[in-house]
Amino acid sequence: MNSRSQECVQALRYLSKEEAVTMETELLRDYRFGRQQLTEMLGHACATAIAKVFPLSSLEKRQPTVLVICGPDQNGCVGLACARHLRVFEYIPTVFTPKRSSDGLHQDLMLQCERMDLPFLSYLPTEVQLINDAYNLVVDAVLGPETELASVGEPFTGVLQTLQGLRVPIVSLDIPSGWDADESSSDGISPALLVSLMTPKRCAMSFSGSHFLAGRFLPYDIQRKYELNLPRFSGTDVVVRL
Amino acid sequence: MNSRSQECVQALRYLSKEEAVTMETELLRDYRFGRQQLTEMLGHACATAIAKVFPLSSLEKRQPTVLVICGPDQNGCVGLACARHLRVFEYIPTVFTPKRSSDGLHQDLMLQCERMDLPFLSYLPTEVQLINDAYNLVVDAVLGPETELASVGEPFTGVLQTLQGLRVPIVSLDIPSGWDADESSSDGISPALLVSLMTPKRCAMSFSGSHFLAGRFLPYDIQRKYELNLPRFSGTDVVVRL
Repeated sequence: MNSRSQECVQALRYLSKEEAVTMETELLRDYRFGRQQLTEMLGHACATAIAKVFPLSSLEKRQPTVLVICGPDQNGCVGLACARHLRVFEYIPTVFTPKRSSDGLHQDLMLQCERMDLPFLSYLPTEVQLINDAYNLVVDAVLGPETELASVGEPFTGVLQTLQGLRVPIVSLDIPSGWDADESSSDGISPALLVSLMTPKRCAMSFSGSHFLAGRFLPYDIQRKYELNLPRFSGTDVVVRL
Repeated sequence: MNSRSQECVQALRYLSKEEAVTMETELLRDYRFGRQQLTEMLGHACATAIAKVFPLSSLEKRQPTVLVICGPDQNGCVGLACARHLRVFEYIPTVFTPKRSSDGLHQDLMLQCERMDLPFLSYLPTEVQLINDAYNLVVDAVLGPETELASVGEPFTGVLQTLQGLRVPIVSLDIPSGWDADESSSDGISPALLVSLMTPKRCAMSFSGSHFLAGRFLPYDIQRKYELNLPRFSGTDVVVRL
């Protein structure tokens, strides 16, 4: 077997939380990617994955409503960019942010959503039936891999509890909120679709729903350094099904 | 005829240079889009349009080589982002920048290209045959609509002259370099493909090659304010053929 065919059969690597954080730092510092740039590409790719798995024509409600729940950190920023692109793809997204963010990029993306006429919820109904009735799906952009789960309190624990009670499908960005990025999980939320950002995290190994990879822009040196063995994206596709 | 069908038959508007500049200022100031964000979305869409019109399988040379010529201003930034995405789409782009730029975004995008192993030309051959032989196509991201043509000197006049002598197809981003954004042009370069950014400029009315529109993110209020009457983008497409 020559080295090329060996390369092809190498398994996709699932990064630890620590590796994922280091890789992102390198992209920002050594490759001079900007957070705006990364967020925009990832948010766009997430919206595209959602449109592939839940096309407008497949939605059961009369309106193509989607609830997008965005945390105050990077995961929430990607969620906001995703919501904006979903609107452009003719979905009707509503945004809920459990906590105000002091991050300038987060604030800019919020304003973009507001000025694209996306409605914002002022609170999340605790009665899950209201969410099941109003939305075709819920996008979970609440917590990211870098979140220290031990220190997560309200309002996030309440949001996670509500997410667990939903019947409508959940789409999680990067990792399902509440999961430890490094551990397989048997409780917590069970998304129907997981969109891993740049690389899948270890917890995704125990995930059994639809799984897409977003972020077709990683420099080859980064891919080699972290031995990512990414699958081949087709044509000009921004996502690939894992 | 009801108002909806009237809306459908409204002709696409071709903006004047002044309107285009004002619109971009509003996007940055009132909608808080970042330049990084806009550049990334537009560069990605341009690369996608190129892959549609000149797919890898259609290229005549043994290698899918593309020469991307990037000016020092915003048009050149979009060209650099486009080059990076072309590399990801498995083209082999080479970059030439006629003039060093003091713009931080330009410098970051240059570094991203360098670290994606894109080769840079140190000078543009004046012998056009060398370019015709080496590249399948040339991307013209030299001058944008905001350029004051009267004040354009070397090295740009030399680059424009070389572009005029090429036999390989030229892809111009936003406007063909050297054209006045507001005027129809009968001399200057004749691109095979023009990718208008956000909205077509007036000079594009006299353009007879393939014409695509990139930038599917304009807020509806902006579209209404400038009466753009944009065509419908299909599915999750980032470009549409005009």
